[in-house]
Amino acid sequence: MVDQTINSYQGLNCPLPINQRKDIILGHGSGGKLTQDLIQKTFMPYFKSDNLLKGNDFADLDLPGSSQPFNKIAISTDSHVVTPLFFPGGDIGKLAICGTVNDVAMSGAIVKYITIGFILEEGLNIHTLEKISESISITAKEANVEIVAGDTKVVEKNQCDGLFINTTGLGFIPNDVNINGQNAHPGDSIIISGTIGDHGMAILNARNELGFEATLSSDVAPLNHLINDLINSIPEIHVLRDPTRGGVATTLNEIAIQSDVGVELDEANLPIKNVVQTACELLGFDPLYVANEGKVIIIAPTKYEVSILNILKKNKYGKESKIIGHITDEHHKTVLVKSAYGGTRILDSLSGEMLPRIC
Amino acid sequence: MVDQTINSYQGLNCPLPINQRKDIILGHGSGGKLTQDLIQKTFMPYFKSDNLLKGNDFADLDLPGSSQPFNKIAISTDSHVVTPLFFPGGDIGKLAICGTVNDVAMSGAIVKYITIGFILEEGLNIHTLEKISESISITAKEANVEIVAGDTKVVEKNQCDGLFINTTGLGFIPNDVNINGQNAHPGDSIIISGTIGDHGMAILNARNELGFEATLSSDVAPLNHLINDLINSIPEIHVLRDPTRGGVATTLNEIAIQSDVGVELDEANLPIKNVVQTACELLGFDPLYVANEGKVIIIAPTKYEVSILNILKKNKYGKESKIIGHITDEHHKTVLVKSAYGGTRILDSLSGEMLPRIC
Repeated sequence: MVDQTINSYQGLNCPLPINQRKDIILGHGSGGKLTQDLIQKTFMPYFKSDNLLKGNDFADLDLPGSSQPFNKIAISTDSHVVTPLFFPGGDIGKLAICGTVNDVAMSGAIVKYITIGFILEEGLNIHTLEKISESISITAKEANVEIVAGDTKVVEKNQCDGLFINTTGLGFIPNDVNINGQNAHPGDSIIISGTIGDHGMAILNARNELGFEATLSSDVAPLNHLINDLINSIPEIHVLRDPTRGGVATTLNEIAIQSDVGVELDEANLPIKNVVQTACELLGFDPLYVANEGKVIIIAPTKYEVSILNILKKNKYGKESKIIGHITDEHHKTVLVKSAYGGTRILDSLSGEMLPRIC
Repeated sequence: MVDQTINSYQGLNCPLPINQRKDIILGHGSGGKLTQDLIQKTFMPYFKSDNLLKGNDFADLDLPGSSQPFNKIAISTDSHVVTPLFFPGGDIGKLAICGTVNDVAMSGAIVKYITIGFILEEGLNIHTLEKISESISITAKEANVEIVAGDTKVVEKNQCDGLFINTTGLGFIPNDVNINGQNAHPGDSIIISGTIGDHGMAILNARNELGFEATLSSDVAPLNHLINDLINSIPEIHVLRDPTRGGVATTLNEIAIQSDVGVELDEANLPIKNVVQTACELLGFDPLYVANEGKVIIIAPTKYEVSILNILKKNKYGKESKIIGHITDEHHKTVLVKSAYGGTRILDSLSGEMLPRIC
């Protein structure tokens, strides 16, 4: 059933082969294959840059002059277009801070500063904007990041959907930290900090598309303190990445390609809430493709896996962490998953669009 | 006639007094009084930050550790929603690079890096996106800034108007530079790098709202090299600011308030193209309120004014530079303009919205 589901994503919004399309479709924003296609064919011919070529969600930039104990700036940018604006577990404001804080934190940086650009729709209720601003403020305080610059644009009614928020985050990478999607080594363990699929299914339910009465709550959370705790204790973390758009499957495919290694996942070990599992089964979704907004995948030598789990479980955002697989020297650039029933299948990147506007 | 025009802006989109409004209106994106109102009443209660309180278009952040010859990072963010996407003299891509490069450069920083966040509308032609990407690339090369990170979101048809672009720029401020909206001193001269009102009127004409056959071309340009030339030669520049949304009038009002000084402008000395002057007169616009995207206002001690003009006139973006006024110790926080006919009037900040979606 899961295999059929994956194939059905590839059909979704994609009646024509990719190379025959000339217009933007929703799948170009999926974070999966179509997004990669757009980046490689439309943007990269113009925006060539060593940093973009690395394929991380952050750029690491040299600090000018000598600057102990930091030698790099980490920067990341994200626009947020989630609908609805408010959902169980969060809202667009909390998401806008967490999404960018987490992307910067995945470099191993101490996250310090954030900028906010609002695009507001004429007619938006100012009380709504105040509630979102309050949520931004509370989340920024929890993450201990300072909002240092902002911008506001307003467009006519029906020219944007309520509001969009861009955030750009800035942090400083300690000298002895080298965490990067290119660093996964055969023999490394793959750990996830908690249950998967919570955010995407919560958004879908909030749109009344599921009609679930049970609470499906987003996991959106700032992970920078949890990550700092890990980095301070474990000297050899190879890769950190948050499995957002495209889910765990797409994220691991990206890393398998960047590091030129194979990935093996153990489906039986995937932490998934019952309500999320049930919702996914009803809709024919594979939770491995559903977005998370408060989870991190950690790849590090196996000898550290117990210490990593111990650190994660002490943090409120890491209580349900699990070892979910390992890196192998076989089937390079490919993610295999051993199903709970004993079979093995290839887990591809997300094609097309599964859930538009989830972040 | 001009006074009436100013009053008519205040009526535009503003049938109710500001304090009775509960919804976002286009004027909240004007860069003028309503934008300030939104920032002060809706955002600042939540986003308190020393950097935001300074009121500049950039934040200056401490670099960690010791970092000669730079001790500050300058950062600025801008979302771009201009319509139409292409106009004489530029397009949304060129504008997105120049707008942010210029804001960072106004701090006196060497501008180094830029991030780009796209929000694309389903159905956007990919060839359009390629043309805009090419324009971004050409402008970034001219400005000598590296595009280091990006993000792409797609929203459903009719949920955004073609595409919106957020850019965030990063630069490093040399140790001996202290340029700030709070630094204007009585006795300083006010210089503008060229003709005013070109961008706003070009956008209006491109929307076929004027029907002018004469070419009204935007001045959109990256000014960072011109500004670096100034800073390298003139040790005491007090303020640099680009008069974008709200125009020269609003920008000078901001500086008058930040520095707690008076501003006196000489209307006869304002460089204005004939075609822009004519278009403004036909529409009842005051060019002092019309947006510019390739101009900088320079405030510095009078003894440097000739040297500044000489440097500006050597640069293709400064050929029509002029001394347009001075800073005074009288009528603090107020901008006065001596008209060409001998009268004097108060030049207030822009109220309401004059030209929506010009940047």
